[in-house]
Amino acid sequence: MTKQRPKTDTSAVNVADYIVARLAAEGIDHCFGVAGDYVFPICDAVDNSAKVKWIGCANELNASYAADGYARIRGAAMLATTYGVGELSAMNGVMGAKAERSLVFHVVGMPSYQHQRLHKIAHHTLGDGVFGNFVELSAGAACCHAVINPENCVVEMERIIAEARRNNQPAYIAVPSDYALSPVVSADVKPIVPKSNEAALQKAMAIIAERINKAKSIVAFPAFTISRLGLQKEAQKAIEALGCPFVTTLMEKCVIGESHPQFAGMYAGAVSEPKTRKIIEGADLVLDLGGVNLNDITTAAYSGQLDLSRFVTVGLDDVRIGDQVIANVRLEDILSGLAKLKPSSAPYKGKPQGLAQVNGRPSDKITMAALYPRYAAFLRAGDTVILETGSSSLGVTPTILPDGVRVEAQVLWGSIGWATPAAFGVALADPSRRTILITGEGSHQLTANDVGAMGRFGANVIVFVLNNGGYLIERALEENPDWTYNDVAPWNYAELPKALGCANWYTARVTTVGELDEAMKAARASKTGAYIEIVGGKMDMPPALAFAHGQLQAMYGDTP
Amino acid sequence: MTKQRPKTDTSAVNVADYIVARLAAEGIDHCFGVAGDYVFPICDAVDNSAKVKWIGCANELNASYAADGYARIRGAAMLATTYGVGELSAMNGVMGAKAERSLVFHVVGMPSYQHQRLHKIAHHTLGDGVFGNFVELSAGAACCHAVINPENCVVEMERIIAEARRNNQPAYIAVPSDYALSPVVSADVKPIVPKSNEAALQKAMAIIAERINKAKSIVAFPAFTISRLGLQKEAQKAIEALGCPFVTTLMEKCVIGESHPQFAGMYAGAVSEPKTRKIIEGADLVLDLGGVNLNDITTAAYSGQLDLSRFVTVGLDDVRIGDQVIANVRLEDILSGLAKLKPSSAPYKGKPQGLAQVNGRPSDKITMAALYPRYAAFLRAGDTVILETGSSSLGVTPTILPDGVRVEAQVLWGSIGWATPAAFGVALADPSRRTILITGEGSHQLTANDVGAMGRFGANVIVFVLNNGGYLIERALEENPDWTYNDVAPWNYAELPKALGCANWYTARVTTVGELDEAMKAARASKTGAYIEIVGGKMDMPPALAFAHGQLQAMYGDTP
Repeated sequence: MTKQRPKTDTSAVNVADYIVARLAAEGIDHCFGVAGDYVFPICDAVDNSAKVKWIGCANELNASYAADGYARIRGAAMLATTYGVGELSAMNGVMGAKAERSLVFHVVGMPSYQHQRLHKIAHHTLGDGVFGNFVELSAGAACCHAVINPENCVVEMERIIAEARRNNQPAYIAVPSDYALSPVVSADVKPIVPKSNEAALQKAMAIIAERINKAKSIVAFPAFTISRLGLQKEAQKAIEALGCPFVTTLMEKCVIGESHPQFAGMYAGAVSEPKTRKIIEGADLVLDLGGVNLNDITTAAYSGQLDLSRFVTVGLDDVRIGDQVIANVRLEDILSGLAKLKPSSAPYKGKPQGLAQVNGRPSDKITMAALYPRYAAFLRAGDTVILETGSSSLGVTPTILPDGVRVEAQVLWGSIGWATPAAFGVALADPSRRTILITGEGSHQLTANDVGAMGRFGANVIVFVLNNGGYLIERALEENPDWTYNDVAPWNYAELPKALGCANWYTARVTTVGELDEAMKAARASKTGAYIEIVGGKMDMPPALAFAHGQLQAMYGDTP
Repeated sequence: MTKQRPKTDTSAVNVADYIVARLAAEGIDHCFGVAGDYVFPICDAVDNSAKVKWIGCANELNASYAADGYARIRGAAMLATTYGVGELSAMNGVMGAKAERSLVFHVVGMPSYQHQRLHKIAHHTLGDGVFGNFVELSAGAACCHAVINPENCVVEMERIIAEARRNNQPAYIAVPSDYALSPVVSADVKPIVPKSNEAALQKAMAIIAERINKAKSIVAFPAFTISRLGLQKEAQKAIEALGCPFVTTLMEKCVIGESHPQFAGMYAGAVSEPKTRKIIEGADLVLDLGGVNLNDITTAAYSGQLDLSRFVTVGLDDVRIGDQVIANVRLEDILSGLAKLKPSSAPYKGKPQGLAQVNGRPSDKITMAALYPRYAAFLRAGDTVILETGSSSLGVTPTILPDGVRVEAQVLWGSIGWATPAAFGVALADPSRRTILITGEGSHQLTANDVGAMGRFGANVIVFVLNNGGYLIERALEENPDWTYNDVAPWNYAELPKALGCANWYTARVTTVGELDEAMKAARASKTGAYIEIVGGKMDMPPALAFAHGQLQAMYGDTP
């Protein structure tokens, strides 16, 4: 169906090969997806590509999560699915990438233009001869989209890539299967790199500098977008130049090392440390670097007293100061401008918190009080830890972690099940680091079938699954925790990797602190993946979750 | 959060309880779904209901497939998911129900009206204070939708139910979480039952009767909608009154028993038996009862020579004869009218094919030639068999099956992975029948995590999984079958039920015909679920798939 063609001469390259090569030039080495007939030409182009490797996932939702994880590390990812059935299955995962600013190129194979033109009744359609039913739906999960043909391919790809880069959000690229195999018509379009308008940048910097000069107290508030764009070092330089304290929410956990002297703690509304809360809520000027998302989770149910009129918000592509919005200003340029400022005051110097002490005797049952400090002790520089939404993220994030640990979580979108395939994507994105997945059973069950893909592709993740009798996050968010819908099927988790073909993985099921400590040691030593099932108490909550349990009205509004 | 309230007086019932009770009145006893905070009020109402049981699935896509399976047996199903993350994950499954005319009521819990009104930044949103982002997307997978408030609840539910019944397609019902807990405002609206316009019905019947009288040869072509609407007996009566032969496609496999003397075989374009092909392609009048879907799969890649000008198509709610469309005529009324006609000719009497002989010696490796006749011999009256899209459906459907076997497959939408959760839903919908799942590994991996739910809820499905080294359907649909994207993770399938908590299930891994025969016997005898992994050859195709392999150009259009 496809043949190997040279890639240097655009005119001899088919559309599918061109798309794959163009995305590869964005730094993408892997394509996550599930094959299907309409997308075969794209799959073939990937299999033919010397650069991009096909990573087959168990299903499309998992593939989209894996792509999201990969994009967070590499800046961009490729996801390939088939028309209708495939693309719609991926929709939640791609929408999550949109919400959380992760750049996934979602390439979808459509029925051939010929069959579209003839209104053929085809499989993977509503049986109505209509082929526009799903493009608009899938496009809703992206910041831009295109339906590709041989003539528009080159220019549409540049437009799409530029727009996706500008917003750092998904792009949807639909390719009819016959067009995919047609030679690309060349066009004279160079890659468009998003950059600031110089006048707008100078204006924004001048206003920011003035606000900084006037302010008696400044705090920097780096956003989750800093790590999505790979601007951690640039943000650190800017903050060091400013000399002010910085605070993060749980969405930015470890974006800059937590032992940094300017780190003033994690802000989480009323559950923040009093010192942290005072620094940010009392500041004259809050420099929001990247667009911090102050949602119900990051503010612990809208608690706390942040005064938004004191914010200067530097978005990815704009700066907002009160009602003034200066567009076409890039975050990276503002960071670079800030790094050149000379602050008047001496740098803030906090007292970095040390790591929490581990506690509990070897024969003790595993409590959350014993578990979460152990994660902090287990993690080390060079680890990337993926936290599942729920007690896992709320348990780990308040704990100080060692420098050099990278943390990824999906706090705003909060789609349970995300973390397992995301960890797979993260592991492939950077095999030089160790990937650690911390999840709970309720979430894990949604997407655990891709533990098999981890084994198949040698992604040596260390997986921790908390087996605690169902959905603890949900029990915590209700007055009555005992609704039957919070129960889950009683899996024997530790048997799962073997059933899913992860030959030679280290597996363990631990019920005591001593067993956990042993298993952690063994997992760290393993050259393959590792999978540890931790048996915990049904209502044993980490403190942040216990707090949320007391704030139900604030989170959901008054009960009528 | 919610309290038990009496359900007799509408004014004292809250919106969530009302919705659950109203759907229960449609014959629904189970609610499939995944809980989440915005949908808690609906989940609570289900848990509080004496009639409807909560069926927690591993994820929302699986839940939507299970609901589809349930609706096919029971006429309607309930699916509950949470805002954004949940509903979008279910989208492919609900869209499949739309394509295949299966009535799933998709109830989604939204953030509270209070928070919507205040544009709160909330989890499971894009972080933009906008709450209309997903309603339009999810509504795209339904034939009608409503956003419920206490005042519109009664009338909207009647409108939605009537419209969904009219089309036998999904309805989307979104409920803000605070409204869900508010008392319903009563309204004087009685249930609206779709019925024919009497004049239109008489006109349609007169035209049809005239066409029947004039025709020298008639064939009945009952559609898949016959079983979706539970009209199998009515269709059989009509066909018996007509006395003409009837033909089905693979979408209607076994809609009327295959030993029926009027059964003239399965039509599949050029791969039909010559006799069958001649009967339908040569008929003066093809009575399409329900809207047969002549897609690339049912026509074996648009092969054969059906003359659509000879069709009279009776839709669910209209009759089409050439360019004439008579609206507001119900399928069931036309069937009833046909049953009263007196045909002039003597009834057609075909020679029913007997069951295929099983072949192969006990020590032989399992070939497809040995496998598919064995399914026919294994199945018996009282079984409902769920066929996965792919070699499973293309392998089983050409084989004559015993009377009293019911077959469900998703031929048009063809979303791989559907069959496993659909079998779960079918099993719960009618425990008096034995549910048999026939699937292949490539498809099974997408949704196998809900084998755990089968065990948890006592759905004693007999599962056959073909382990044949990847996606055979895809290898068959390509010139080069060896692309790496057709490989899958090497699961140890037979170990899966135990890992997923299916205690006491019968499991086996079989590689020879003798082992298969033994396992089939043991599975049939088991009182619990059973799970048989069948090891087959990587390129061993059933004949229908081998035919498709030769028709690639017709299926996809010319290669450029």
